[in-house]
Amino acid sequence: MQAGKPILYSYFRSSCSWRVRIALALKNIDYETIPTNLIKDGGQQLAIIEYLEETRPTPRLLPQDPKKRAYVHMISNLIVSGIQPLQNLSVLKQLRQENNLPWAQKAISSGFQALEQILQGTAGKYCVGDEVTMADLCLVPQVANAERFEVDLTPYPAISRINKTLLALEAFQVSHPCRQPDTPPELRA
Amino acid sequence: MQAGKPILYSYFRSSCSWRVRIALALKNIDYETIPTNLIKDGGQQLAIIEYLEETRPTPRLLPQDPKKRAYVHMISNLIVSGIQPLQNLSVLKQLRQENNLPWAQKAISSGFQALEQILQGTAGKYCVGDEVTMADLCLVPQVANAERFEVDLTPYPAISRINKTLLALEAFQVSHPCRQPDTPPELRA
Repeated sequence: MQAGKPILYSYFRSSCSWRVRIALALKNIDYETIPTNLIKDGGQQLAIIEYLEETRPTPRLLPQDPKKRAYVHMISNLIVSGIQPLQNLSVLKQLRQENNLPWAQKAISSGFQALEQILQGTAGKYCVGDEVTMADLCLVPQVANAERFEVDLTPYPAISRINKTLLALEAFQVSHPCRQPDTPPELRA
Repeated sequence: MQAGKPILYSYFRSSCSWRVRIALALKNIDYETIPTNLIKDGGQQLAIIEYLEETRPTPRLLPQDPKKRAYVHMISNLIVSGIQPLQNLSVLKQLRQENNLPWAQKAISSGFQALEQILQGTAGKYCVGDEVTMADLCLVPQVANAERFEVDLTPYPAISRINKTLLALEAFQVSHPCRQPDTPPELRA
């Protein structure tokens, strides 16, 4: 980070890119975007967030308390490994087209059932307590994917409430897919 | 960890359980196994490893240098989010039976292609330099899955070499699926 402005290879719609954009916004790091239509999505972008956390520790995205940190990692990993990979584009492309939507919906809703239960025990204002953590960076882009795949969110009141609270924060707004350099005009807001 | 022996809910064959067993063995933590036929696999067990790293820091499974730590997270996440979720049992169950093997093979080999390239830049004796890290805990169980799915490993010389070196270490042997309390007799070694 020392030399020059960091460059983010980003795709406006990718939930993985969005996670990183939120971290950059929260840590107030100025960066350049190079729009990239990501083929290989997945959880690798979490490595960027961990790196940012270590090199730019303020504000912290991981709580100091090991137990709370474990909750944050548990929630992040549930989304990043347990949900997102099963509903991403490269997987859906391998399925017959008529199976796409039910497959993605099933992946998301079975993950959200587990997540909703975890949040009952960990959530305050946000996913873990009252500070924004890495778990929240994972939550919001995943809820947006759920909405895109028309998943009914009524059974997940904690998820819905936290998502709404987070979306009111500036870091989540400036990083939103509808406001990126590569967002097509018809999807801008 | 303070009060009593930790309990690991473990399934002998699960690559996610195996990752944690390696961490426990490396950190010399005595634990009790409760065999559990895991339905929800996935990357959540990485949260346990992060927790162990924070509460029992010796030996470290994450390098001190932020750049090396980022490599470790990148490799771990590639396996935990990019490969394992696509070839795990619950996903394969949703496919028609004749599609199972090619699907799993494709998920693993496309992930291994990316991984092999990354390792060219990061590997020493192990995945990142010459110390065992979290990336190695992810590698060995994933290679075992590749072998189970009959993936040809010839195109991945770095993966194969590191895997072989790691399997010679005691922590990887005592944690091996063929030696667990719930390993069926015909799979013991």
